[in-house]
Amino acid sequence: MTLLESILQDFPRIDMDARAAARARLDQLTMPHWALGRLMDLAEELAGITGQMPPPVAGKTVVTMAADHGIAAQGVSGYPREVTVQMVHNIVAGGAGINVLAHLAGARVVVADLGVAGDLSALTKAGRIIDKKIALGTMDMTRGPAMTRAQAVQAVEAGIEIARELGPQTHVFGTGEMGIGNTTPSSAIVALYARTPVADVTGRGTGIDDRQLVHKVAMIEKAIAANAPDISDPIDILAKLGGFEIGGIAGLILGAAAQRKPVLVDGFISTAGALIAAHIEPLARNFMIASHRSMEPGHHIALKCLDKKPLLDLDLRLGEGTGAALALHLVEAAARILTEVATFTEAGVSQAGG
Amino acid sequence: MTLLESILQDFPRIDMDARAAARARLDQLTMPHWALGRLMDLAEELAGITGQMPPPVAGKTVVTMAADHGIAAQGVSGYPREVTVQMVHNIVAGGAGINVLAHLAGARVVVADLGVAGDLSALTKAGRIIDKKIALGTMDMTRGPAMTRAQAVQAVEAGIEIARELGPQTHVFGTGEMGIGNTTPSSAIVALYARTPVADVTGRGTGIDDRQLVHKVAMIEKAIAANAPDISDPIDILAKLGGFEIGGIAGLILGAAAQRKPVLVDGFISTAGALIAAHIEPLARNFMIASHRSMEPGHHIALKCLDKKPLLDLDLRLGEGTGAALALHLVEAAARILTEVATFTEAGVSQAGG
Repeated sequence: MTLLESILQDFPRIDMDARAAARARLDQLTMPHWALGRLMDLAEELAGITGQMPPPVAGKTVVTMAADHGIAAQGVSGYPREVTVQMVHNIVAGGAGINVLAHLAGARVVVADLGVAGDLSALTKAGRIIDKKIALGTMDMTRGPAMTRAQAVQAVEAGIEIARELGPQTHVFGTGEMGIGNTTPSSAIVALYARTPVADVTGRGTGIDDRQLVHKVAMIEKAIAANAPDISDPIDILAKLGGFEIGGIAGLILGAAAQRKPVLVDGFISTAGALIAAHIEPLARNFMIASHRSMEPGHHIALKCLDKKPLLDLDLRLGEGTGAALALHLVEAAARILTEVATFTEAGVSQAGG
Repeated sequence: MTLLESILQDFPRIDMDARAAARARLDQLTMPHWALGRLMDLAEELAGITGQMPPPVAGKTVVTMAADHGIAAQGVSGYPREVTVQMVHNIVAGGAGINVLAHLAGARVVVADLGVAGDLSALTKAGRIIDKKIALGTMDMTRGPAMTRAQAVQAVEAGIEIARELGPQTHVFGTGEMGIGNTTPSSAIVALYARTPVADVTGRGTGIDDRQLVHKVAMIEKAIAANAPDISDPIDILAKLGGFEIGGIAGLILGAAAQRKPVLVDGFISTAGALIAAHIEPLARNFMIASHRSMEPGHHIALKCLDKKPLLDLDLRLGEGTGAALALHLVEAAARILTEVATFTEAGVSQAGG
């Protein structure tokens, strides 16, 4: 039995008793009923996910999965491909957006190389990144599958392994990614699952112009036509139209869920990975928390496919895990409300209608 | 010259040079242009407000203004009036929602008694709250003005004094309030400024039922008819339809702005206070940051009147300053992005089109 097969056996469900225990406490807090709205929904959800009351949230890890994309050669991004390697170094050095926001949220940032087209062996040897490199970037999906089926499984299993390796110090995971060109495979995946025209779920990514956007849509349509993916087979979709980091994100989510740990799903690319995970195992959806709605137009549609309402809406479009890092503050807030706010009885405060 | 008159002399404006310096740095950060969206808007705004680059945000204070309302005798709230006193004690003891969220954001909570209908002298003597008590609650505004004009000025000046007293340890202020019945005067103020029917801006507050909501609307309409406030005179509106804590919030905002310090405006009641402040001195608007959009239906309309877009939308309806406390995390994040994210040159990362 493969790692992926084994993790899908006895996949966990929401713990309804822990959820009910959380709700019972929230109902008694010194405030009008459910007056902290979505923070209280989140607190209840955390109890159901973890099966613990109070739910532990102290250990926070954002995993930034890096990989390159063959489709980048088709001019779908405003940035040159070497930026993936450069940004991995920038994150390892602590200078990227994700470092600042994760640090503020009390989270650790872990970079994993799922398939960067460059030599990162010095960082690997120094223990600065996790090495799960599958290949030096995917193939150009307009000319055939982005990766083999075996590589797709390998990417998902790499994500599962990372979730296991980081599990001992992590209560809450955040997803993140870095990979020049990776909104392109993400749009392809979302278009398939949402059954919408490619143009409706394709945006400017890092900031391409109108002419490049038309080209990007055409490339995605070409890739879908060239590969004829099987909509009922998420591994086939990942292999033909995906990216190594997208598979890794799907695996991280499955691996976290298998440990009954909440996963904050970052932006558009992470949500494409979440869609793959949810189609591999629908129960995994219960463990996902949508951290924010990004500027990328397809993200809204992808979140609808997942039936998830994002916590934040701040016009972010950076990726790396930055939206997940910001939402970690809300997770911490939700957990603390559950334990630190006094009940009416504890505080001697009169209740409504009293 | 009164304190209020003196503060309106030479009222500060946004510092366009500091704003431009912030933008120049943000334009160079290692990410697609403006990829952190509203966090970057906020960073730029903080520089313009403070006139400093980087803007200081370390000292954070949420001021929870407490007062009672004569209108509460008309059954406009689901809670008995003594809850104001009880909740002041709960906040002082650290057991309320605001304590938990402010602590998480690294903010101090300061409670001020603007006019609670109860004896808080023990807390005052112990230095646990700021005493600015004007009276034991307002009068019933359905039968005449809620307060005298002199009391309205006194409430605003109390807020200005509090901003001055807390100024030395505060870089960023958050507004908050506690006062059974205080969505009622807030709806009256917002209805006047928005020129909308009372029913459009009146909600369930702490959670009243349909019948009580109809009654609440009727009471507000009666109060407006009985008092005929002068729409061009914010002090007249505050006196006839306001509350002591609403005047205090207006004053806190004016006092903070006069010190070039940002103020996070909390929910519906705080926004009513912000509308009073903005009509006393339109330049004060520049120093206000809308922290969240609350569940109270009039809040959306009140924010439109202020021409402010809220940072968060989490179905909160607690008040106390809880939305402001949550948004303080975003203020801290915005300030850190400005200083801690590397530029393209610093990190040796290629730029778009490169």
